[in-house]
Amino acid sequence: MRIASLPEFLLLRIERAAPDARTRKPLNRQLYQIIRDAILAQQLPAGLQLPSSRDLARELALSRNTVTYAYEQLIAEGYLETRAGAGTFIADTTPDQIPAATGGKAALTDPSGASELSARGAQLLRHAGVSNLQWGAFMPGVPDVTLFPNKIWSRLQNKHWRRSRAELLTYGEGGGYPPLRAAVAEYLRMARSVNCDASQVLITTGIHQSIDLAAKLLGEAGDRAWVEDPCYWGTRSVLNSLGIKPVPIAVDAEGLQLRPKDLRHPPRFIHVTPSHQYPLGMVMSLSRRRLLLEYAAAHKVWIMEDDYDSEFRYGSRPLASLQGMDSQDRVLYMGTFSKTLFPGLRIGFMVVPQSLAESFATGLSELYRGGQGFAQAVVADFMTEGHFASHIRRMRLLYAERLRLLQEAINRHFGDSVRITGGEAGLHLALGLPDGCDDLAISREAAAQGIIARPLFRYYMNPATAQRGLLLGYACVPEQQIGPIFERLAGIIKRHWPARKVG
Amino acid sequence: MRIASLPEFLLLRIERAAPDARTRKPLNRQLYQIIRDAILAQQLPAGLQLPSSRDLARELALSRNTVTYAYEQLIAEGYLETRAGAGTFIADTTPDQIPAATGGKAALTDPSGASELSARGAQLLRHAGVSNLQWGAFMPGVPDVTLFPNKIWSRLQNKHWRRSRAELLTYGEGGGYPPLRAAVAEYLRMARSVNCDASQVLITTGIHQSIDLAAKLLGEAGDRAWVEDPCYWGTRSVLNSLGIKPVPIAVDAEGLQLRPKDLRHPPRFIHVTPSHQYPLGMVMSLSRRRLLLEYAAAHKVWIMEDDYDSEFRYGSRPLASLQGMDSQDRVLYMGTFSKTLFPGLRIGFMVVPQSLAESFATGLSELYRGGQGFAQAVVADFMTEGHFASHIRRMRLLYAERLRLLQEAINRHFGDSVRITGGEAGLHLALGLPDGCDDLAISREAAAQGIIARPLFRYYMNPATAQRGLLLGYACVPEQQIGPIFERLAGIIKRHWPARKVG
Repeated sequence: MRIASLPEFLLLRIERAAPDARTRKPLNRQLYQIIRDAILAQQLPAGLQLPSSRDLARELALSRNTVTYAYEQLIAEGYLETRAGAGTFIADTTPDQIPAATGGKAALTDPSGASELSARGAQLLRHAGVSNLQWGAFMPGVPDVTLFPNKIWSRLQNKHWRRSRAELLTYGEGGGYPPLRAAVAEYLRMARSVNCDASQVLITTGIHQSIDLAAKLLGEAGDRAWVEDPCYWGTRSVLNSLGIKPVPIAVDAEGLQLRPKDLRHPPRFIHVTPSHQYPLGMVMSLSRRRLLLEYAAAHKVWIMEDDYDSEFRYGSRPLASLQGMDSQDRVLYMGTFSKTLFPGLRIGFMVVPQSLAESFATGLSELYRGGQGFAQAVVADFMTEGHFASHIRRMRLLYAERLRLLQEAINRHFGDSVRITGGEAGLHLALGLPDGCDDLAISREAAAQGIIARPLFRYYMNPATAQRGLLLGYACVPEQQIGPIFERLAGIIKRHWPARKVG
Repeated sequence: MRIASLPEFLLLRIERAAPDARTRKPLNRQLYQIIRDAILAQQLPAGLQLPSSRDLARELALSRNTVTYAYEQLIAEGYLETRAGAGTFIADTTPDQIPAATGGKAALTDPSGASELSARGAQLLRHAGVSNLQWGAFMPGVPDVTLFPNKIWSRLQNKHWRRSRAELLTYGEGGGYPPLRAAVAEYLRMARSVNCDASQVLITTGIHQSIDLAAKLLGEAGDRAWVEDPCYWGTRSVLNSLGIKPVPIAVDAEGLQLRPKDLRHPPRFIHVTPSHQYPLGMVMSLSRRRLLLEYAAAHKVWIMEDDYDSEFRYGSRPLASLQGMDSQDRVLYMGTFSKTLFPGLRIGFMVVPQSLAESFATGLSELYRGGQGFAQAVVADFMTEGHFASHIRRMRLLYAERLRLLQEAINRHFGDSVRITGGEAGLHLALGLPDGCDDLAISREAAAQGIIARPLFRYYMNPATAQRGLLLGYACVPEQQIGPIFERLAGIIKRHWPARKVG
C-alpha cells in the first residue's frame, strides 16, 4: 500500500501520551522510526519528496526541532537524501540483484528454532543435563551458601574498591591475578600434594572453562576422550561441543577400569575424578593411579584430573592428588571454588605442566579475555588471611552432620534394602536402588513435589551398565528439613519399589 | 637403590626446622611423603615390613602421633597394608602389564610444550592477537576505568551482600539474572532500536562467549563464517577454535563488500560491526544493510552483529542496530559492558530470535554454568537507577575531548600526509600510514618505549589488501599525556617514513 498523505499517516501513528511515561518513546524517535519503517516496507517510494521540516512540524503540531532531528537521523542513516535547493527526498535503497546461491546450507522451513540448530547444537540440547532447579533439597554439588561469611567478603571487597586500581578493572593478564595464582599454588601444594609453582596455575571461570581450554589447545575435533561412566554431564557436553568424542569407561570399586581392549587404543584425553568419583564417590586405588600415569606417559595421553570437591572428606583425611604422583607431566589438574566458596563466583583453577604454562596463559586470554580482577583479588585475600581454611573447616563439620542425618533417615526407611555410596566425602551421596526401580519416574514425581532427586541413570552413557539410584545432595539442606523431606521422598520411592521386596 | 635402614633413611630427610616456618611442612606430612616417594621410586620393595609406629617414633625422636598419622594415611591410600597380628608392610602396587598400543597418537619427543599442542592449539597461539599490555597510551578498546563511579558501585554491591540471597550465590538460571535481562532489553529497545523482549536477552561473559555459544549451537566444525577484513582478532580466534573457518571479506567506505562471487557461496555465519567497523570505524550503508538482511534470509545465514562500542558517538547520533531492521530473524545481536562499565566485569549480552531463545538459555548454562549473580544484580540496579546512562554521557564528553586532542596532535605532526579513520565514534582511531611504512616495526619500537600502538596490518587476514597504520586508543589516556606521548610516537613514525615524502 502506498501512503496518500504523509502528514496524516504520521498523525495516526505518533503516540503523544502513554499510560506509563517511562515506556513512551520521545516524539523525535517515534517520528524517525515511523518514517524509517514505512520506507523499509516500501510504503514510501524512492524519489518521493518530503514536506519541509517547517511545514511538517506545523501539520503535526510538533516542535520544528523534533522534525529536524528525525530528518537528520534519517539522512545520516541513508534513508533520506537532500538535493541542493530542491529539498528532502526518499533515497533509493533497493539492494543490488542477488544471484541464486549454489551449494551452501539447504533452506530450513520449520518455524520452531529447534530445527535451525546445528547437529552439534541439537545433540547438546538433547543431552543437556543442566536443570532449572539450582537450589533446595536434595540438590547435589551445591554448598550451603546461606552460611557464607558475607561480612568478611564485603569488607575485603570494599577495601579493594576504595583504592580501585586500573589493573583490577581492565582486562586481566594471561593466567589470572598473580597474587591469587600464588595463593592457589601454595594451597594446592600443602593441601593436595600438587607439585606446582604459581606460573603453572591458571585462574579460569571453573571446570567447564578449564576443560574447554585444554581440549582446544591439546585436542582436535575427532579426537576421543575417555570419561568415567557414570560421570558429570558437563564434562561430556563441553567435550562434545568441541567435536571431541567422549568414550565411556566403566568404573568399579577401584575407580576407572582399564581393560586391555581399551588400552590398545589410546585416546587423546582421559578425564577422571580420582579422589572422589563423580557421582558414585569411590576413590581410585593406588595401583590404578600408577597404571593410569604409566599408560599416559607411554602413549602421550593427557589426563584431566577433576578434583572438584576433595576439600570435604569426613573421617578419613584428604587423599593426595594424582598430579602429585605424576613425574611425566601428563596431568592437567582442575579445581574450583564453586564448592568451597560459592558457585555463583565462577572462579576455578587449573595446574598445567611447566612446559605448557605459557601457552595456556596466552590461550586463556586469547579465547576468553581475562578479567574478574576484583573477585580474584578478594579470593586471594580470603585465602591468605586464613578465612578460606576456617570456612572449609566449619562447613566440613556441618556437612558431616547433615550427611549423618540423611544416612539415618535412609536407614530408618530402607534399612539394608538400599546401598549408599559416596558417603565419605563431598556434598552428596548416591542412593542405590534395586534394578527395575525406575529412578527417572521417581525423580519426575519428586520434582513435581519440589524435591530434587537426580536419577543416577541420567549420568551414564552406556545404559547397559547403568545402575538405578538417586543423587542426594545434603550440603545445602538445613538439618531440620532433612528427615521430613526425605520421608516424603521415601514415600515416592516405595510406590515405585519393584514387586516382591518392599522396603 | 634399595634402602638399608628405613629409620636412617628418614632421619636424613626429615626437615625439622626451616628458615621460613610457613614453608616448612608439618612433620607428619613430611614423613608420609618421604615414605610414599620411596615406594613410588621402588626404593622400598613390596612386602617389606615396617617398624612399629612406637619403635619408629622413638628412633626418629618424633611423637608417636606423628608416625601414626603418616602410617594411617599411607594405609588409606594403599601404599601400606596391615596384616592381622603381623604388622605393617609395603603393599604391592606394581601395575598390571600394559599391552603395546596400536594406532593412537604418535609419541611426541620435543620437551618444549609447543610441539605438544594440537594443530588447533598451535594455530591459535601462532595467530594470538592478545597483548600483555592491557593498559596505557594508546591502548585501543579500553575505557578510562579510573573514572568509574566506585562509590555508587560499592553501595549497590553492599546492598545486595547485606541481604544476600541464595539465588545470587549459587548457579544462575539459564539466560542470566532476570532483572538484568529486562533492563538490557529496555535499554536496547530505546537506545539501539533493537526489537526484543527480556526472554530474548542472554547474559554472557562478553562477545567471546556470545560468539562461542552461537557457533556451537548453530554451526558445525567445517562451516565457514564471513568476517570483515580487517576485523577484531578475538572473533577469528574463537571461530577457529571451534573448527569454523573465517573467510575474510574486504570492507570499503560502506562497510562489508558483498561481491557476486562471494554471494554465490553462502556461509553459515556473517560477522559484522555495522555501526562502527572494527577497527577502521566506517558505518555500514543502508543499502548494504538491506542487502545483507535479504541475503541472510534467502539463504538462512546467521548474521552476528557485534555492536561493541556504539554507545560512544561524537557529533552524529547513535545509528540504529541492524537487528532493528531485520524482519526475518536472522540477526544475533551482541554487545558488552566492557566499554561502558569496565572490561574486568566480564559481562556482556546477546539478543537472539524468539524461536532460539529457549535453546540458547539452556545451552548457556549447559556449556558454561550460570553465575556472577551479584555482579549481574549490581549492573541491573546501576541501569535502572539511571547511573548507566549518566556515566555514558559523562564519558562521551570526556572521550570526545581526548579524541580532539589526539587529532590535533596528529595534525600538528603530520598534517594531511596521514589519513585518520574511525574518529566519529568509539574509543580509538585508525591512523593510516603510506604503503611501505612498516607499522609492525613502528609498533615494536613504540612498545620498547612503553607506548602501545597496535599495527593495523595485524588485523588483516589477507595481507594483499592490508593497509598500513596504527590503532590508537585515546579513551584511557589523561588529557595532558596525549600530546607528549604522541610526540614521542611521531618521532618513531617519522624515522620509519618511506623515502621521498617526509611528514
